[in-house]
Amino acid sequence: MPYPADASPSPASNVQALRWTHGALEVLDQRQLPERIVYETCTSAAAVAEAIASMRVRGAPAIGIAAAYGAVLAARARYRQHPARWRSLFEEDLTQLAGARPTAVNLFWALRRMRAVAAAPHPDPLAALADAAVTLHREDIAANQKMGELGADRLGHAAGLLTHCNTGALATGGYGTALGVIRSAFRRNQPRIYATETRPWLQGSRLTLWELAQDHIPATLIADSAAAHLMRSGRVQWLIVGADRIAANGDTANKIGTYTLAVAARYHGVRVMVVAPTSTIDFETPNGSGIEIEERAPGELLNPCFLAPSTGISAWNPVFDVTPAELIDAIVTERGVASPPHTATLAALRDSLPG
Amino acid sequence: MPYPADASPSPASNVQALRWTHGALEVLDQRQLPERIVYETCTSAAAVAEAIASMRVRGAPAIGIAAAYGAVLAARARYRQHPARWRSLFEEDLTQLAGARPTAVNLFWALRRMRAVAAAPHPDPLAALADAAVTLHREDIAANQKMGELGADRLGHAAGLLTHCNTGALATGGYGTALGVIRSAFRRNQPRIYATETRPWLQGSRLTLWELAQDHIPATLIADSAAAHLMRSGRVQWLIVGADRIAANGDTANKIGTYTLAVAARYHGVRVMVVAPTSTIDFETPNGSGIEIEERAPGELLNPCFLAPSTGISAWNPVFDVTPAELIDAIVTERGVASPPHTATLAALRDSLPG
Repeated sequence: MPYPADASPSPASNVQALRWTHGALEVLDQRQLPERIVYETCTSAAAVAEAIASMRVRGAPAIGIAAAYGAVLAARARYRQHPARWRSLFEEDLTQLAGARPTAVNLFWALRRMRAVAAAPHPDPLAALADAAVTLHREDIAANQKMGELGADRLGHAAGLLTHCNTGALATGGYGTALGVIRSAFRRNQPRIYATETRPWLQGSRLTLWELAQDHIPATLIADSAAAHLMRSGRVQWLIVGADRIAANGDTANKIGTYTLAVAARYHGVRVMVVAPTSTIDFETPNGSGIEIEERAPGELLNPCFLAPSTGISAWNPVFDVTPAELIDAIVTERGVASPPHTATLAALRDSLPG
Repeated sequence: MPYPADASPSPASNVQALRWTHGALEVLDQRQLPERIVYETCTSAAAVAEAIASMRVRGAPAIGIAAAYGAVLAARARYRQHPARWRSLFEEDLTQLAGARPTAVNLFWALRRMRAVAAAPHPDPLAALADAAVTLHREDIAANQKMGELGADRLGHAAGLLTHCNTGALATGGYGTALGVIRSAFRRNQPRIYATETRPWLQGSRLTLWELAQDHIPATLIADSAAAHLMRSGRVQWLIVGADRIAANGDTANKIGTYTLAVAARYHGVRVMVVAPTSTIDFETPNGSGIEIEERAPGELLNPCFLAPSTGISAWNPVFDVTPAELIDAIVTERGVASPPHTATLAALRDSLPG
């Protein structure tokens, strides 16, 4: 079976989180940035699931794309193992991939797409799966670029933009959701860009700054907690963030701290934009109360000297929070921009989706 | 001239940031906590100023007390140097001490007190200065304990309290301002205590957790940005913070992030308590716009790989922000609790101050 040497879509940035090469998935280990640029080669679905769970690869769209490539690797291995009943074994691998992170809906969406391809009659189902993963990857970049333009249209001549976490090329197929809008806006009229550190994983200070530096886009870092002080100074007009899951009413789960920023934005008259592909919208979940919020280990926050229960010290480490739709001025997708009331505008977007 | 072996007031906690011993000031190096407990001996005003500027000692009341001891060391050295004109040389040392940190008004207040003692006729002015510093230290602990009780009275049966930065024994003479209220409340009915990390120096996760662990008070750490998510969960009823400077109208400068937390508190109906001795109130400053906000080096936030200007990456690192009085429900001082409208209630507190 011939594998193309590199089937990755051409990059829309100098930064590539995922490279599909020689039938394996190369994953940029984001935990080691910005000090070290290390690609790890995943040759099995289990390795891809581990790369997602350990946050080597992160960002909802990138997780979905990685899982799709993971499904391709799974199908090939299962086909070699049991050509007759590979599909049922393959299903187990999809379950393992789906369990890697609980909040990102793109993960489940990407796996549904791959499952549907596997179930359909194809002369060469393995080739069809590989094509489907590459197409999904390409479509993600195209969607990002479309969102970038739609979002930048909304910003007008905003002089300052604040973003949280990393939603750029590292978090997606290759351009970015919220950071894609910021890229597009920067090309138009060079707004000042502020990025939060994004504790506890520091995706802002490690990843967003690194990614922007690679693409020669200037940016200024702030501590997460300096956001209200920044907003009061009048330096930013928009808060622009991504999403891990958007409920049918527009309530948006995103990196912990997004909600704190959105509350501060409302208090200061700063507008809030959520940027995410329609695959992030979960129409089965009516509102944010139905979104499971992942909580990670206290050790990600606590100094090791406090880890013993006898110290009386603990940590509460939710990874996401939910920003209620009432605090969101615009939800930018590749099919258009939803304005309040979001329940109606998101439903209209859904009706415009193919199939 | 006889120096008492240890003139420090007896501690109200297992934790002591400052020890006045053998005529020198021992300073607990707070930058090394919680990993290492290291006391450094300061034998000159310059060493004390350096300990303040480098944040070995921090917290507005502790800075004031350290500066008072620094003034004692200065007076002794100047007296040895020039018994006739030591007072004018001493004045230079006070200027150096006052320049160590720009925002903490207690620093200037403590130095004013020491200057007044030096200027008054005393049979033994050096002994009078040493007595004045120890008295200032003792008064601070007594004020903290008084504030602790007054603040705890206001909390009622709150089940959860959130605090920011470190305002405990480490930041004061020995009990704490905001953390003193939390200590007193804990003794009464064991509320659940939440502490923020407090980036970029992590005073919450390094100092507040360590101090509470030393005194066997359980606490839970959160990322600064998780505050709104915590408040939405209903787990906290009060945000309790200290102050570096309070303007005459109640606008309060405190650790960066306090304002972000206060905005989130208002949005969720969580009440906001500021706890500080009356020495922190700056009646000469009508409102927060007159408070100078210290900005520290970008390198405290930025990864070293971004420090070169050619990267296009920078950081904005204000150390304090100003919470407007309209977001503050109670200002607890050792002379009583000021409720809105703060301009009037703070003025009444001033009129009750001696001399």
